[in-house]
Amino acid sequence: MTVLVFLDPKFPEGRLADAAVPQLMAADLGATRGDGVFESMLAVDGTARKMDAHLDRMASSAQALDLAFPERESWERAVSTALSELLIQAGPTEAVVKLLLTRGVEGTGSPSAWVAASPVPAEVRERTAEGLAVLLLDRGYDSTVADRAPWLLLGAKTLSYAVNMAALRYAKAQGADDVIFTSSDGKVLEGPTSSVILAVEEDGVKTLLTPELESGILPGTTQRALFDAAEAAGWARGYGPLEPAHLMEADAVWLVSSIRLLAPVTSIDGTPIPSSPELTEELTALLRGAL
Amino acid sequence: MTVLVFLDPKFPEGRLADAAVPQLMAADLGATRGDGVFESMLAVDGTARKMDAHLDRMASSAQALDLAFPERESWERAVSTALSELLIQAGPTEAVVKLLLTRGVEGTGSPSAWVAASPVPAEVRERTAEGLAVLLLDRGYDSTVADRAPWLLLGAKTLSYAVNMAALRYAKAQGADDVIFTSSDGKVLEGPTSSVILAVEEDGVKTLLTPELESGILPGTTQRALFDAAEAAGWARGYGPLEPAHLMEADAVWLVSSIRLLAPVTSIDGTPIPSSPELTEELTALLRGAL
Repeated sequence: MTVLVFLDPKFPEGRLADAAVPQLMAADLGATRGDGVFESMLAVDGTARKMDAHLDRMASSAQALDLAFPERESWERAVSTALSELLIQAGPTEAVVKLLLTRGVEGTGSPSAWVAASPVPAEVRERTAEGLAVLLLDRGYDSTVADRAPWLLLGAKTLSYAVNMAALRYAKAQGADDVIFTSSDGKVLEGPTSSVILAVEEDGVKTLLTPELESGILPGTTQRALFDAAEAAGWARGYGPLEPAHLMEADAVWLVSSIRLLAPVTSIDGTPIPSSPELTEELTALLRGAL
Repeated sequence: MTVLVFLDPKFPEGRLADAAVPQLMAADLGATRGDGVFESMLAVDGTARKMDAHLDRMASSAQALDLAFPERESWERAVSTALSELLIQAGPTEAVVKLLLTRGVEGTGSPSAWVAASPVPAEVRERTAEGLAVLLLDRGYDSTVADRAPWLLLGAKTLSYAVNMAALRYAKAQGADDVIFTSSDGKVLEGPTSSVILAVEEDGVKTLLTPELESGILPGTTQRALFDAAEAAGWARGYGPLEPAHLMEADAVWLVSSIRLLAPVTSIDGTPIPSSPELTEELTALLRGAL
């Protein structure tokens, strides 16, 4: 069940639309060219979490695509309308709240913008709790290309996710659950729909590590929230470059994202790696407290 | 003006749909993930040209995405329905016929497939006739990655075209008209919506050259039709690897595609290059004869 709310100047609180019937034009460039941007947020107790961070990132993605970004207040009101309606239709539930912005129908110059809210599917977290078997897959780009080739949109969360989806299908066809992309020069990057985080404990100091943003990855809103919360709790933090050996040698590795939160990685390319239910529990509590 | 025809088992000739109202579900993975494939064909005198080549390539793209491909006959009938209706609505006209196939609404396993037919916009060819100022832009991938990383979908024509569109916008912001992508190892690849072709005349032998498919480019249906027609007319043909120096030293360079046909390149990164109205005319006639 999904609640749809379109941003529409004629409807200051957003325009509720029936998700069971077509709502998009066939010529919308989102559908014909993947030409748009999106975010997926978690809502708990009727409130979208990290909304500012998601809107910041979405505005930055839109800028990379030279797409006008609707006012933040119009997104906020549409999200609020969607969550109120979801509460009526589905009762209290954790929710996935997607924000979508496309270039709209070719030639009109009028973007399409909408919010889709639905209950978090139970299987998302059940699957995660068992731990993920992950494949390392080459993302094809070297880790220095993002800066010199802005047209590759490497830091933008675009609707052009066919490669991300294909990488996940490839992993599943090999019996794995998820993917960590590496750069052509051998650096650890990110998952197709997640950030990569490592924990290392040395001489009593617990450190969280993640690849550096300059390697052309998406800035993870959950990664950042977790780093902030962990630092406040006495953890150290660090940034790449990271290589696959760092993953194999860490005390624990997670894929983190807004809906799934911390998903422990238990094997890489078929080789089991250390994981730590205690650390997963500790960091999940820190993260949930920070959301 | 656009005619829409959806492939629909309940409508053997295709289901005509009103292009002026929404026809796609907001949760269609084509719109939310760029998860699908497409083709753009030229129709002349009410008949789509190179339809077999387009359907072959689309089937191959679909296979790369692990998408079931509807029967060719259902596409052919839908195209025929669309072109008959376009004739009624717009009179005799050359037409752009787009074929689109998405993974459909998440979770349903039911793909969306449709045909969109509209008159060829006059400006497409007017602009082309003046010649194109082209920028060379790094595509980020090296020319050998396609084979070893099938999840990058390099030979597939997917709906995830945000980077192609961003590259064109980048070129236009720099005062150029179009783009030729190069690989990270310095090879000439293709345009964002076209193939690259060079003509070289030496010792009375006229040769057409294009980058080799193994470099991770899309197999060009127009490039192939042109090569076949030119060979029948006495031209030699050759395949890359090509480097930017080959472009600068050729007797003429074109971007070729189904709708725009041969678009002569007149400068690269601001440097004028030779072009030949005679060769453009000769090859356009050969190509049109072969369509």
